Amino acid sequence: MTPALARALERNTALVDGTLDRLLAPTSDFPETVRKAMRYSLFAGGKRLRPTLVLAAAECCGLSPRRALKTAAALEMIHTYSLIHDDLPAMDDDDLRRGKPTNHKVFGEALAILAGDGLLTKAFEAAAENAADLRLEGRRAAELVRVVALGAGVEGMVGGQVADLAAEGQARRLGKTAAARALEAVHRRKTGALIAASLDAGAILAGASAPRRAALRAYGESVGLAFQIADDVLDVVGDKAKLGKRGSDRDNGKLTYVALYGVDGARAKARALAEMAHAQLKSFGRRAAVLHELADYVIEREK
Amino acid sequence: MTPALARALERNTALVDGTLDRLLAPTSDFPETVRKAMRYSLFAGGKRLRPTLVLAAAECCGLSPRRALKTAAALEMIHTYSLIHDDLPAMDDDDLRRGKPTNHKVFGEALAILAGDGLLTKAFEAAAENAADLRLEGRRAAELVRVVALGAGVEGMVGGQVADLAAEGQARRLGKTAAARALEAVHRRKTGALIAASLDAGAILAGASAPRRAALRAYGESVGLAFQIADDVLDVVGDKAKLGKRGSDRDNGKLTYVALYGVDGARAKARALAEMAHAQLKSFGRRAAVLHELADYVIEREK
Repeated sequence: MTPALARALERNTALVDGTLDRLLAPTSDFPETVRKAMRYSLFAGGKRLRPTLVLAAAECCGLSPRRALKTAAALEMIHTYSLIHDDLPAMDDDDLRRGKPTNHKVFGEALAILAGDGLLTKAFEAAAENAADLRLEGRRAAELVRVVALGAGVEGMVGGQVADLAAEGQARRLGKTAAARALEAVHRRKTGALIAASLDAGAILAGASAPRRAALRAYGESVGLAFQIADDVLDVVGDKAKLGKRGSDRDNGKLTYVALYGVDGARAKARALAEMAHAQLKSFGRRAAVLHELADYVIEREK
Repeated sequence: MTPALARALERNTALVDGTLDRLLAPTSDFPETVRKAMRYSLFAGGKRLRPTLVLAAAECCGLSPRRALKTAAALEMIHTYSLIHDDLPAMDDDDLRRGKPTNHKVFGEALAILAGDGLLTKAFEAAAENAADLRLEGRRAAELVRVVALGAGVEGMVGGQVADLAAEGQARRLGKTAAARALEAVHRRKTGALIAASLDAGAILAGASAPRRAALRAYGESVGLAFQIADDVLDVVGDKAKLGKRGSDRDNGKLTYVALYGVDGARAKARALAEMAHAQLKSFGRRAAVLHELADYVIEREK
């Protein structure tokens, strides 16, 4: 990571964390038990990739990142809810996440489900507030909410998780080409859709044109897939302590990019996707500096 | 139920069901497994109370109900997601709902969780589309989404479910006054908040003034609580076959209005709340006919 990116990430993380802290402040209407459960996973050391992408996309299109903070927080809340629900016993049944006990291990399953539901719902509240604060015109305010919902929902992230569950066990019976296609389809939705929505949301807040929105979405789709491939590589070659995981996907018999292409092949694929991401940023000039650096960072990170 | 209300409900149900059917139509991006699970619970014989309230509130404020259909569908999707998640083994662990096996009994827990998540997310997509279709101005479009999120989230319905889980077992240790206060606090949020949001959402779509919105919200809060009390009465005196339930809340040792006030006392309370609801409708004149009838219906219904 370059010093410039490190500074940008540090600044954005502080801003986003402050916004999340305010959005989840104690009020008389907010039951303390679920508030604690929501905050536990929100402040469990996430990389803040999605909010950083919201802020960087907004900046890229001429809006001060500070004016996009509630939407950035919304995308992080959606990401966090998806982790809480994915970790549940009925889903991936994970005990650890980022080296800490998962939400349901600490708060019980019922509260973990409700904390996830609460985060997803509050995300839309926060995005709507951002639209109101910026006095977005009606069509654009509606488009912001719609883009976030499509990225998060059955056409996006939820659909990806459904496809992932369905693919379990099927992968072994597929040939390599079919397996590769199935794997990419899962990850384009499970990770890629919300990342693309993060960039689009930032662009919408900034009043960006349709071609600029499309370029940022395409950047996000490439970066999202590259991020997932890097995850698969890290799962094999990474430092378990840094990753905070107990088992690996390989141990669980999951289909991965490394299983399909080997470590070197997977790394080459991630690198090619990062190049595609860079290419989408041409028209933005120097304003896209953070996004350029992020495209390299997602494939070079160590956790 | 009067013939006029029966006709209104029949017409609205047909319109809402048609809208839900279109919103959950098969597309290449919509995984079939989760689509089936979502539709199973959406079309399981719900009373369509919340969407009817959206449409009636819109009409009351001068907007054709047909122009509020996507928001009406959104409120029904949120109600349905909450039932799916509440029925999960980690929550109320119910096998039957409206006389049919619950979602997780048919599709498994993982898909039931995801179907709920998908419905909640699609609700916001639908509400945002409604705002765009009507060309609502920005502040109003944002307010629509915010009101729905607040009614559904930790300050509303999710918070009510959290309080309900926390109250289990505690009720026995409370005196009658404290128990009554705790019970009302749970139901004002668990049922009342989303019902009040349904009315407010219809009013917002119609461009209603703040006092009209407040009157309709107050109507909704009274009707919501009356609805819940009527539920408790039905649980004791109702026809189990019509209710489609196996056990009763009394069997499960839950605190209810009947346990606190007896059947007659609970009925009197529901009647008083219905009267308060009627009083809120004064300024709307004859346009509020359906809402007047609904206030009586919720306490007189047999299922």
